[in-house]
Amino acid sequence: MAGPGLLFVVSGPSGAGKDTVVAELRKRYERIRYSVSATTREPRPGEEHGQDYFFLTRSEFEAKNAADGFLETRSYNGNLYGTPRSFIEETLAQGYDVIMKPEVNGALAVKAAFPDAVLIFLLPDKFSYLRARLEARRTETPAEIAARLETAHEEVQYIRRFDYLVVNEEAQPQQAVDDLDAILRAERHRIYRWTDQAIRTLEES
Amino acid sequence: MAGPGLLFVVSGPSGAGKDTVVAELRKRYERIRYSVSATTREPRPGEEHGQDYFFLTRSEFEAKNAADGFLETRSYNGNLYGTPRSFIEETLAQGYDVIMKPEVNGALAVKAAFPDAVLIFLLPDKFSYLRARLEARRTETPAEIAARLETAHEEVQYIRRFDYLVVNEEAQPQQAVDDLDAILRAERHRIYRWTDQAIRTLEES
Repeated sequence: MAGPGLLFVVSGPSGAGKDTVVAELRKRYERIRYSVSATTREPRPGEEHGQDYFFLTRSEFEAKNAADGFLETRSYNGNLYGTPRSFIEETLAQGYDVIMKPEVNGALAVKAAFPDAVLIFLLPDKFSYLRARLEARRTETPAEIAARLETAHEEVQYIRRFDYLVVNEEAQPQQAVDDLDAILRAERHRIYRWTDQAIRTLEES
Repeated sequence: MAGPGLLFVVSGPSGAGKDTVVAELRKRYERIRYSVSATTREPRPGEEHGQDYFFLTRSEFEAKNAADGFLETRSYNGNLYGTPRSFIEETLAQGYDVIMKPEVNGALAVKAAFPDAVLIFLLPDKFSYLRARLEARRTETPAEIAARLETAHEEVQYIRRFDYLVVNEEAQPQQAVDDLDAILRAERHRIYRWTDQAIRTLEES
């Protein structure tokens, strides 16, 4: 079926494995476009400007925001995050799907702006793995990790506002990628994605 | 996630390819159980009692119906059709998924009885293929084929009461099976399939 692309939002607590899962999914779907967020936080080792995030100074961020350049913005652990508006709007209009992986607050803000967006909540099969993964990352202080774990529990309170829950199993990481893959494929077939015109064309063929 | 199984209902006009697609899907999922319908119509060549349908006489059908043995019944082209109730209820309670392929009226009746059922409408990529497939089947008279095609157009009027539309492409029949496969997998992850208790258990692990 033709028509605008779909917006897939993969979210969940820090340490749930969003980065890995979305990276794997992008390898499978060449036609899916990744929406890069902007942030004022410092890059982690290996992160690239324009690939992982647009790393902006606070004044750059505020100027873009004043020009209505963000779909939504939010503050998280003292840093600003935002979703550039024009990329998503133009890419969907061209018929490409877009995937993004904002924090939970950001996902809900995106849903408010794009009610058709598909929201997927990612959790590890054991909550205790969150701490282990954050510690293994070695980019946060113990206090930051404690704050992120507290945030994680707060984030789960919003889980019912998501469309799907996918469990990222520590022992079988490929499963979560397959699950997301199935969700992407299935969502294209939901009846409300079809216009009356598209159904009529099919019926008259 | 544990819990009761899911009920998948694949429907659509005669000649859309329900039989082939569902048969392929059952090969992939050994754990899915097939709900065999009952009917008073004559078996087509190759159809087996208990496999394709329970072929009942009209009086047998009516006795079972009087004993509340059907989830729903309907009349179609002068024959009675019914969905045996106990098989579905028991199989879902055991945690197995159930798949069935009733006519469109039957699908809507099942949805009324099981609001959680997932309804999938199957259409060929060209409506004109319906006639070609019915003719190739050589089991209906020209008058019966004309009646079925008229019924097909009436059935499409109910398409918005379904959850998904899958197009069964003549040139790529495997695509529709892959689509159904994705829908089955994705539906297990829909947030309302998760109980609060299941999410709490995950969060406390």
